[in-house]
Amino acid sequence: MTIPASRVEHVADPSRKAGLIGNCPDPAQLLGHSPGLRLDVLDRLRDASVLSAAQFDKDLLCELAKLAALLQLKSFPVLDALEDKILAAAFFEPSTRTRLSFESAMLHLGGKTISVADAKTTGVAKGESMRDIGQMFNSYADIVAVRHTEQSAVGELCKYLRIPLLNGGNGSDEHPSQALADWYALLKWRPEIAYGTIPEKFRLNIGIIGTPGNMRTVKSFLMLALLFEKNINHITIFSEMADPLGEEIRAMTNASAIGINFSQDLSQSLEYLDVVYMNAIAYLGDGYRFFGDAFSLDASSPLKPDTVILHPLARGEELSVDLDHTQHNLYFNQADGAVWIRQALLLCIFGRVADVVPPEHLS
Amino acid sequence: MTIPASRVEHVADPSRKAGLIGNCPDPAQLLGHSPGLRLDVLDRLRDASVLSAAQFDKDLLCELAKLAALLQLKSFPVLDALEDKILAAAFFEPSTRTRLSFESAMLHLGGKTISVADAKTTGVAKGESMRDIGQMFNSYADIVAVRHTEQSAVGELCKYLRIPLLNGGNGSDEHPSQALADWYALLKWRPEIAYGTIPEKFRLNIGIIGTPGNMRTVKSFLMLALLFEKNINHITIFSEMADPLGEEIRAMTNASAIGINFSQDLSQSLEYLDVVYMNAIAYLGDGYRFFGDAFSLDASSPLKPDTVILHPLARGEELSVDLDHTQHNLYFNQADGAVWIRQALLLCIFGRVADVVPPEHLS
Amino acid sequence: MTIPASRVEHVADPSRKAGLIGNCPDPAQLLGHSPGLRLDVLDRLRDASVLSAAQFDKDLLCELAKLAALLQLKSFPVLDALEDKILAAAFFEPSTRTRLSFESAMLHLGGKTISVADAKTTGVAKGESMRDIGQMFNSYADIVAVRHTEQSAVGELCKYLRIPLLNGGNGSDEHPSQALADWYALLKWRPEIAYGTIPEKFRLNIGIIGTPGNMRTVKSFLMLALLFEKNINHITIFSEMADPLGEEIRAMTNASAIGINFSQDLSQSLEYLDVVYMNAIAYLGDGYRFFGDAFSLDASSPLKPDTVILHPLARGEELSVDLDHTQHNLYFNQADGAVWIRQALLLCIFGRVADVVPPEHLS
Repeated sequence: MTIPASRVEHVADPSRKAGLIGNCPDPAQLLGHSPGLRLDVLDRLRDASVLSAAQFDKDLLCELAKLAALLQLKSFPVLDALEDKILAAAFFEPSTRTRLSFESAMLHLGGKTISVADAKTTGVAKGESMRDIGQMFNSYADIVAVRHTEQSAVGELCKYLRIPLLNGGNGSDEHPSQALADWYALLKWRPEIAYGTIPEKFRLNIGIIGTPGNMRTVKSFLMLALLFEKNINHITIFSEMADPLGEEIRAMTNASAIGINFSQDLSQSLEYLDVVYMNAIAYLGDGYRFFGDAFSLDASSPLKPDTVILHPLARGEELSVDLDHTQHNLYFNQADGAVWIRQALLLCIFGRVADVVPPEHLS
Repeated sequence: MTIPASRVEHVADPSRKAGLIGNCPDPAQLLGHSPGLRLDVLDRLRDASVLSAAQFDKDLLCELAKLAALLQLKSFPVLDALEDKILAAAFFEPSTRTRLSFESAMLHLGGKTISVADAKTTGVAKGESMRDIGQMFNSYADIVAVRHTEQSAVGELCKYLRIPLLNGGNGSDEHPSQALADWYALLKWRPEIAYGTIPEKFRLNIGIIGTPGNMRTVKSFLMLALLFEKNINHITIFSEMADPLGEEIRAMTNASAIGINFSQDLSQSLEYLDVVYMNAIAYLGDGYRFFGDAFSLDASSPLKPDTVILHPLARGEELSVDLDHTQHNLYFNQADGAVWIRQALLLCIFGRVADVVPPEHLS
Repeated sequence: MTIPASRVEHVADPSRKAGLIGNCPDPAQLLGHSPGLRLDVLDRLRDASVLSAAQFDKDLLCELAKLAALLQLKSFPVLDALEDKILAAAFFEPSTRTRLSFESAMLHLGGKTISVADAKTTGVAKGESMRDIGQMFNSYADIVAVRHTEQSAVGELCKYLRIPLLNGGNGSDEHPSQALADWYALLKWRPEIAYGTIPEKFRLNIGIIGTPGNMRTVKSFLMLALLFEKNINHITIFSEMADPLGEEIRAMTNASAIGINFSQDLSQSLEYLDVVYMNAIAYLGDGYRFFGDAFSLDASSPLKPDTVILHPLARGEELSVDLDHTQHNLYFNQADGAVWIRQALLLCIFGRVADVVPPEHLS
């Protein structure tokens, strides 16, 4: 019979095996720049909920990134690490990307998962309160990852939980595990951010497109950026909003040695930026809004050769696909690392790090 | 940087570790009152479907509760007990609470799960019949837990199954596994209900708020209550309906030695009640209706000091949260026990009890 | 108490244990007609995506069917075969039957699953592109089974995947794993189709009710039928459409030695047909349409005694349930085999066949 080529062209596409495209720093670099893992630091996450990026200091973030690197390098077996644990993925606001990332992380560690992919399939539809929902998760799971359209819902739920909660995005507030994935990518790219003190002239200039005041990924990313005062020179916020920071974030930036600039001219600023963080989508309580048109990047943008772009994806018009195959593309690596940093988080919260990490990797 | 206290207040809340609030009887009490587990009784569930509370007699219910207590006390390992089995959770009527409870029970025993969380994501949307759906589950799973808005659907599906079916709620008819959880809580609270004969003056008076005739949880709870003729004095039904029982239930209550009263004055009756069973939500075929306003309880209600309240949750206005921290609150314990009684049910149906329970726990 | 018989009638229905009804050929027959498994042939599926039935030649289809038969006969343990692998079931077009079949197959082999049961619960709702969705699955899973309403979406997604993709139905185009299940049933029923050369007068006449040009299951079934030129005499297409084949399929049938007829009179033709393939449902890009009324079968249809009927189910009016208990019913066996042929597919793609199949079953 005739087999139309069109039907089989992608079946065994050799490029498929070529691996991740874009900028793919070796996780080993991150480990090379540091001593072994510090269990005392990671143990601060034991039994802890993760509600905010504000819970992390530089030490904890960097040790977590190192553990993620060891996991990504498959340095030791973890297939049974959490075999007796159940993760409940409670996504009252639907989100495949984050839900599957938490579920995949749990399954990689031998754990089990139960899921709520959509509030419409829950008792919430019957007016169930966070109080009673909390009791449910206490009884059915060992940890719960939650996304909710309302900022207050996650903290409210946490009040009634005896098990740890992972904030998977609460309204326009925060998305801490995403920010951990963002910085895991940056620390693999420039390990000296974590361990060295970069000479002043080489300190990073970071551009953030969006409004930290009401875009959860941007806010959490910025909060972690403030941990690296010694190695970040300036952070420039690109936004059309009058007050992109908002009161809470402004208090944090005011207390930081990092200079904060504001601009509405991205292309003018690109020559100074080492990192550009983009996210076109903001959840504004009543739904998603796009900010993609105002500031966008493509292969013709005047980026410095070694500038990297971060984007939590899914992308809109603001980030052209013609950048995917360039070294500016750190966003695929950022997405790729999310499942490893979440595994690191789970191992720490369940206090199982010492059970799986061989002594030679410990400090 | 400044970390707003508000962002971390719940992270390591010490009260989180305090455990379940409310009335938490020790499962060991239940075991203390009885000889070892009777395999011959539990074996009556082997390969059986569970459609109705009417399938359980006092012996079977009590032995099942004892097995659940052993599981809750983690008396022996069960992590691989059902590793070769798959549970299909088929919730054509969405319900997170019951679906996750069945899934969690299966995962605790090392089993696997496949799920339908919403009829809109099934072939049912294409007009699939229970006959063809049955063939699907026969081929893909070893047991199926089903919830459906139509009373007839569950029995109809069972006709075409070669694998056991667990009724997770069928329209306004029954919810037997919920009733097992209800009674597991009561038997832990008063083991003498199961094993002793309570002196007449101490026999229980139970109040049921709702209409057994068309509220599935209430109906199944009442059917199991009728098994304890020797230890229950009166059951009082609180309802505004002319005929809260309906023909089928009336036939059962007429055949019972337990006195059945009807009342519309809850507060007047509270001084006589040892147990109050509440559920504000009734599924009436065409959707949910709330009965919460007519009869409600809060901390100021004239309850006897040792009276306990049961509620399948999620609650409405009828049950005030100010009761949560009192000894009247057995409803959290009731929710907490659901996952253990469902594990007991699964072990019996798959005939794996003898494989996991050590001889010292057998009679 | 009185237990209404109606409440327990199906609980322990002895017929439940009776097993599959209809025509149930023994998988051992298929193995009996052939030498051991040919690893070299099955290895052609290693790391391959399965987009189209056109990827399979006769050898590959038959070896795959033999592996499925060994799995269905539980000839060797497979409970840990894929314990380190994760299947993502990405059903942007909802479908319980196919999704649960892939998930069940993965779980039978000890693999793990993450699922998207409904596009409304995904980032797709936020306008996510296949390009970015691909990166997500690359990072979170080891293989992805996809169904989508748009024909182009599956090939488009495959372009961005580094992991294999299984086409679970793409618009009105193809459904290759369904066709593999169809032919697994036929090869168990008549192993000589696979291995022998049937004398001309006994060669099969196959009737296909539907339009291969725009019904994905019908199209994929026909494409595999064309592999058996030596043993199929005629294929008759029953359709009311002017051009039921369409250009691509016509090119394939023109290149085949099998005679293709067209008819609008099913009952007239039944006396000549050995196999009748039915499917009333066609996905026509903008939704499902039913073709059940034009051509239908029931127990009174003038079928030859040994004619078998295939139907991917769920059925509509076109296939009467009064055929379920007859030997014409191969459609339940077809559904039952789907989970085994999908397990065979997964073992081959992950290159794990040699790890689980004992030498005595190899050629």
